[in-house]
Amino acid sequence: MSSTTVRRVLIYGGKGALGSVCVQFFKKQNWWVTSVDLVANSEANENIVIKSSTTDQWTQQEAEVVNGVGQVLGSDNKLDAIVCVAGGWAGGSAAADDFVKNTDLMIRQSLWSSVISAKLAAKYLSDGGLLALTGARAALEPTPGMIGYGLAKSAVHHLVQSLSQSTGGLPTGATVVAILPVTFDTPMNRKFMPKADTSQWTPLEFAAELMWKWASAPAAATDDVRPKSGSLVQLITKSGETELVVTAGHN
Amino acid sequence: MSSTTVRRVLIYGGKGALGSVCVQFFKKQNWWVTSVDLVANSEANENIVIKSSTTDQWTQQEAEVVNGVGQVLGSDNKLDAIVCVAGGWAGGSAAADDFVKNTDLMIRQSLWSSVISAKLAAKYLSDGGLLALTGARAALEPTPGMIGYGLAKSAVHHLVQSLSQSTGGLPTGATVVAILPVTFDTPMNRKFMPKADTSQWTPLEFAAELMWKWASAPAAATDDVRPKSGSLVQLITKSGETELVVTAGHN
Repeated sequence: MSSTTVRRVLIYGGKGALGSVCVQFFKKQNWWVTSVDLVANSEANENIVIKSSTTDQWTQQEAEVVNGVGQVLGSDNKLDAIVCVAGGWAGGSAAADDFVKNTDLMIRQSLWSSVISAKLAAKYLSDGGLLALTGARAALEPTPGMIGYGLAKSAVHHLVQSLSQSTGGLPTGATVVAILPVTFDTPMNRKFMPKADTSQWTPLEFAAELMWKWASAPAAATDDVRPKSGSLVQLITKSGETELVVTAGHN
Repeated sequence: MSSTTVRRVLIYGGKGALGSVCVQFFKKQNWWVTSVDLVANSEANENIVIKSSTTDQWTQQEAEVVNGVGQVLGSDNKLDAIVCVAGGWAGGSAAADDFVKNTDLMIRQSLWSSVISAKLAAKYLSDGGLLALTGARAALEPTPGMIGYGLAKSAVHHLVQSLSQSTGGLPTGATVVAILPVTFDTPMNRKFMPKADTSQWTPLEFAAELMWKWASAPAAATDDVRPKSGSLVQLITKSGETELVVTAGHN
């Protein structure tokens, strides 16, 4: 019989709609779970609660989170997976009054969290571990009605490509991927789009299970179990069924 | 005989290496030139000197610049061209100590200036005018050794794509493009890469003349004179000759 090994995951945005479901899912599979968010998630084993306000500096958030993770991990442990599902949405073309403000917000919500997750991966991820970030299907094309959102997610996609290279700074054999959702089936989306066809929305549980499946698989697994490093994985849901459409990625 | 019409250009980063040459070039062609930079360029007709420090907020820089441009333009005038050549370079993979700090700097230098230029274009550019931003040839591929630089420039490329759509917020008939340099022949690059083959570096005068040529042409000009909106124009210099390689763009 194999010895029992604790497997460790960090969920960046672990108190959000998707993050909370990820925390629950990994916990149910007996993983040790750390949540990073602006408020604690009581279901997680450990919490890093970000104290610096969103008007503060990127490097302040970095210092808080990197130090916090070091403390909860202890000196001998590594993370098996880092899942970043922090983010948000704001619209607007260049003619919108809030164009710059909303673009700034998108960079803070999507890119700050993704880049700090990359830093955490370089420092704390185990060899062969998984770093999963959140891009967007929409950002594979121009996004004139939500310019800030699109460019921030486009930057996340580029980050994944760079990190997947052997000189990108991740531990040996690590896999970095991004999920590219269209629309998640969240309470907020149901509230603000009450007439939408929710059979085309991706269930949060699907994404959480996917993250767990990828995190559990060894890096050398077949594509079915864990995509190649650098993959951008679109989550395309139709009639309640979600299909994975994988672009980019390489061995 | 046609009446004499003053043509107006704004150079964002007008005191930098490329920006200074652009200011000179447009002045020589009798354009009215406004420079936006951290210090004034005495050759420009007008200067917007950014007072907020680089540790301040994106929206502060926006307010300063938008108000400043409104004042120097006056209520009846528009800009015929906005050329953003602000930027900088910093390297590092995710394993670099300064990874987050340098990524932050790249976003501030390249993306803040580009997004504020887009805002200026929505507000002050004339119909059929030109908005030219600065991307990077390198960012068309993964950039593991300079991750922050690559993702910031990738975001600029996405911004150009979004702005080029009819609903992106630019004035009617305006053209938005990005130049994608490999290496400019600047004093700094000569200092830090003393052994490089400078015959593969793009002369600053070439880029300045190109900007002037595109700015002077009507939006309906042929591709030779002004590229289609949304174009990413690589500047590929070999043996002292620079070739334009145009990708993306549409009518």
